[in-house]
Amino acid sequence: MSMPFKKTISAVIAACCLTPALAQHAFNDAESAVEYRQKALSIMRDNFAAMGDMVKGEVDYDASIFSERATDFTHLTSIPWSAFSVEGAMPGDGSDALPAIWDNWEDFQQRAEQLQSDAKKLQQAAASGSLDTIKPAFMAVARNCKGCHDNYKD
Amino acid sequence: MSMPFKKTISAVIAACCLTPALAQHAFNDAESAVEYRQKALSIMRDNFAAMGDMVKGEVDYDASIFSERATDFTHLTSIPWSAFSVEGAMPGDGSDALPAIWDNWEDFQQRAEQLQSDAKKLQQAAASGSLDTIKPAFMAVARNCKGCHDNYKD
Repeated sequence: MSMPFKKTISAVIAACCLTPALAQHAFNDAESAVEYRQKALSIMRDNFAAMGDMVKGEVDYDASIFSERATDFTHLTSIPWSAFSVEGAMPGDGSDALPAIWDNWEDFQQRAEQLQSDAKKLQQAAASGSLDTIKPAFMAVARNCKGCHDNYKD
Repeated sequence: MSMPFKKTISAVIAACCLTPALAQHAFNDAESAVEYRQKALSIMRDNFAAMGDMVKGEVDYDASIFSERATDFTHLTSIPWSAFSVEGAMPGDGSDALPAIWDNWEDFQQRAEQLQSDAKKLQQAAASGSLDTIKPAFMAVARNCKGCHDNYKD
C-alpha cells in the first residue's frame, strides 16, 4: 500500500468513524465485545417491545409501524453472536452471559440460527397486515428469547 | 383478544425480553430513542473499525472475517434512523445530533439511504475476496460517515 493512500484512508476514517490508530473496538477488545453484544441485544429488545405493545393491545396496531419494527428486528437478529466468540469476552464483570454458552456452543449457535429463521417468519407475517397472522409468529420468536435466556443468561 | 391469550403473551414477553407492562423503550420514550440510535451507530462503527484495521494494513486481511463485518455493517445501516423521528428525541442532553438534522430532514434521509446503498456495494466487494476491489468501496462508505458527521454531528 502506498503511503499517500494510507494517509488518505487514515484521515477519512479518523475524521468520521474512529479515534486514531490504536482505537479499541468490539473485534479487537474483549470488554468492547461485551458492550457490543449488549448494545445489539438491547436494540433488538426495543424493537421487540414496540411490537409487543401492539400484540398485547396496549398500543393500537399499526401495520406499517409493526412491519418496520419486524424488519429492523430481523436485521438485528444476526448481529450479537459474533461478539460471543471474541477471545476473552467470556463471563465476568459487566456480563450476565453464563459459562453454559461456551460449554454448549453448538446449541447456542443453533438457537441463534433458529431465532433468525423465526424472525424472518415474523417479518413475513407482519407484511400480511393481519394481527391474527402475526400473533403466533410473534410468540414463536418470544419463545426463542425466553429459551435462550433461561439457559444462558444469569 | 381473550384474556388467557393476553396473559400468556405477557408472561412470555415479561420473562424474556421486557420488564413488565409499562416498560419504556426506544419507540415510546425519547430518552431511550437517543440511546437506541447511539447504540446502533456504535456497533456500526465497531464493524467499520474492524474493516478499517484490514484496509489500513494494521491487521492482516482475512477475506472471511472482512466479509462477515461487511455483512453485519450493511444490516446495521438501516437501523439508527427511525430513532431520529421519535417525538422528543431531538438535540439536547446526551445527544450530539445537531438541529440541522431536523432543518434538513430530506437531506438527512437521502444520506441515510446513500449509506445503505454504498454499504451493499461494500458487502459485494467484500465477497470478491480482493482488497483492491474492497478499498474504493470502503472509502465510498467512509465518505458517507464523514459527510453526515460534518453536517449533522456536534
